[in-house]
Amino acid sequence: MRCGQGIEARQVDELFINIDPIQAAGRLTGDAMKAVIAYGDGYSVCDNCRKPNRLDYIAKPPIAEFHKDVAKWLNMDAVRTVPGARRGFQAVAGTYVNKGDPVLLTALSHYTEFMAVEGAGGVAREVPVGDDKRVTPDAVATKIEEVKRESGRVPVLAFIDHVDYQYGNVHDVAGIAKVAHQYDIPVVCNGAYTVGVLPVDGKALGVDFVVGSGHKSMAAPAPSGILASTAERGNEVFRTTAIEGDVTKRKFGIKEPEMMGCTLMGVTLVGMMASFPYVKERTKHFDKELANHQIVMDALLSIEGTTCQSEYPRKHTMTRINTIESFDKAAETHKKRGYYLQSALEERGITGIIPGATKVWKFNTYGATRKQAEHLAGAFVEIARENGLAVREQV
Amino acid sequence: MRCGQGIEARQVDELFINIDPIQAAGRLTGDAMKAVIAYGDGYSVCDNCRKPNRLDYIAKPPIAEFHKDVAKWLNMDAVRTVPGARRGFQAVAGTYVNKGDPVLLTALSHYTEFMAVEGAGGVAREVPVGDDKRVTPDAVATKIEEVKRESGRVPVLAFIDHVDYQYGNVHDVAGIAKVAHQYDIPVVCNGAYTVGVLPVDGKALGVDFVVGSGHKSMAAPAPSGILASTAERGNEVFRTTAIEGDVTKRKFGIKEPEMMGCTLMGVTLVGMMASFPYVKERTKHFDKELANHQIVMDALLSIEGTTCQSEYPRKHTMTRINTIESFDKAAETHKKRGYYLQSALEERGITGIIPGATKVWKFNTYGATRKQAEHLAGAFVEIARENGLAVREQV
Repeated sequence: MRCGQGIEARQVDELFINIDPIQAAGRLTGDAMKAVIAYGDGYSVCDNCRKPNRLDYIAKPPIAEFHKDVAKWLNMDAVRTVPGARRGFQAVAGTYVNKGDPVLLTALSHYTEFMAVEGAGGVAREVPVGDDKRVTPDAVATKIEEVKRESGRVPVLAFIDHVDYQYGNVHDVAGIAKVAHQYDIPVVCNGAYTVGVLPVDGKALGVDFVVGSGHKSMAAPAPSGILASTAERGNEVFRTTAIEGDVTKRKFGIKEPEMMGCTLMGVTLVGMMASFPYVKERTKHFDKELANHQIVMDALLSIEGTTCQSEYPRKHTMTRINTIESFDKAAETHKKRGYYLQSALEERGITGIIPGATKVWKFNTYGATRKQAEHLAGAFVEIARENGLAVREQV
Repeated sequence: MRCGQGIEARQVDELFINIDPIQAAGRLTGDAMKAVIAYGDGYSVCDNCRKPNRLDYIAKPPIAEFHKDVAKWLNMDAVRTVPGARRGFQAVAGTYVNKGDPVLLTALSHYTEFMAVEGAGGVAREVPVGDDKRVTPDAVATKIEEVKRESGRVPVLAFIDHVDYQYGNVHDVAGIAKVAHQYDIPVVCNGAYTVGVLPVDGKALGVDFVVGSGHKSMAAPAPSGILASTAERGNEVFRTTAIEGDVTKRKFGIKEPEMMGCTLMGVTLVGMMASFPYVKERTKHFDKELANHQIVMDALLSIEGTTCQSEYPRKHTMTRINTIESFDKAAETHKKRGYYLQSALEERGITGIIPGATKVWKFNTYGATRKQAEHLAGAFVEIARENGLAVREQV
């Protein structure tokens, strides 16, 4: 089935249980699908644009209200939508980072934070992590002191991933923000894996910025995301334009240069808005998501030789698993080599792990029902047994 | 009909002939609508991401091929997709503009070019336009000399709108690029009103960059657009990342910092791809669009007192019209005041002009069939007559 010349219609989430680590929490809700159809045209949200002519002020559809609701929900003061979390990082880096400035990242930072720092001309200084793969306030303090010693000044900005993309570990953002603030360093919380997935309270975290990803964790089309800030920092990052045409003397009202003027339009914005009530609700039930995830973890860990590389017990549904001593052993002699695992999963209606991966891989059960979690658990155990791997009896 | 809690489904283009100046060429094609449904999820295009793990290399859906096709179509060497034309401007400004650098814009430049310049710390220097509202190579040369005299150096970058948003006039981009290149100034052609609307040949224009807008002129969802460059300039703006983690020694492969890593995903990209064959075809028939536009222009100009503020005869379907001495006269005594025009148009199934506008306003007939153009023409004349305005017999 095609949806355009040479473009096969995608049916992955219609045909499979999808445990792709980055896709699970981005699946559109039914309302988002409807919104995408109704607001497919880019400037569709601009029908009722009135003075002061900025997109986030539009009342119909209720864009202005959505901005207020998101700010309240995250317990932050100001919110803007951005074309992906990375564009939120870029806006913040563009505000605080000048050429040669040290910027605090971590050994687990997402690459898009590095792109934002590079774009602004900053120098990446990573906070190391220990064997437990957790960023600690102590390590942050040590790194700041190291940067201070080496460059004579403290980092101008700090990025901390609330839950990192490598292990899905939850980091002590509140503790880290406290340390950074002792040095007056503004803190960006990368909530790409948390905003829209679990409860996030910006004030409780004590951060200056919370960045969320629409297409990763808010059931919205791409590219979408949100940048939330405190009132104080909002005045800096969301400052209004000051540029003027030297001939026409034109100025550009309340447009914001870091946002490049008007923000998200059409499908991306209205999709995010349509999903928002569901997203807000689902974050309240993250405990159920974790319980379902545990069913799959129990099954995986019952396969001898399998270890969890993420922190354990799990606090997030995206997990890094090591099957070098289990599934990978079977790959050595299997005629499909490493592809047998993906293949066997697909036969059972499961997709989303990297084709050929049997050593270290990630998966995400977010959104899977209990029944689906049980099916996933059963599938892994069954595939292990079929391939001669030892499975411990689960109690 | 709602498409989400509190969100009315938009039906503007289903119920009306829409002559909104910025919406006309952005309406999705049928295939784009299908693509939007099939690729609603953000990371949907990433199912078959393989090494070197960059979105524009993905073969299925045929993203890599699309990039090549667009480059060939525009007669440029390299193409990337961007979340809106403005993000293309931003990437180019980020590459060439440093704090305090003069940048050449024009009196007709779109505000997003100013945002890009402001974001990079540049100083806006506008090329003035005369009464004919056209940017000329001579005026560009004069301005460059003025900047040189005043600041001791030439502008580091020049933006020129192929067709400007204020008048819809076609500017002599080739002549302007020639002048700018005599001073080694790279030239960005803002094709937001041309790429996807009429034939654009980057090499014939002699520019370094062509920027197009997906949601304005390529029948694609927002935010989307393309940034095309020559091979030489592509090496500069599409340079690969050089940043490195000081602890992990991580590098980020062939990701491009000005693109913030991977580019457009999901609905925006696949929508643009699905519309592309139609868009490519329609640019070949721009003469028909102009002929239909002329039908409406003839009608409007037959209403006494009405003048065309854009260049005339028209070379684009987006036109700025002055009805101060016609429709606005009738508004003085009409019980609906200035809103009567919009109201009378809507009664005739026409929408898209600013509510209340009867003085100077813009409209765009792009995509209207001949029959629709005749309906538009008839409607304007009828409304004029109904409101006691004199209408000359059309020959």
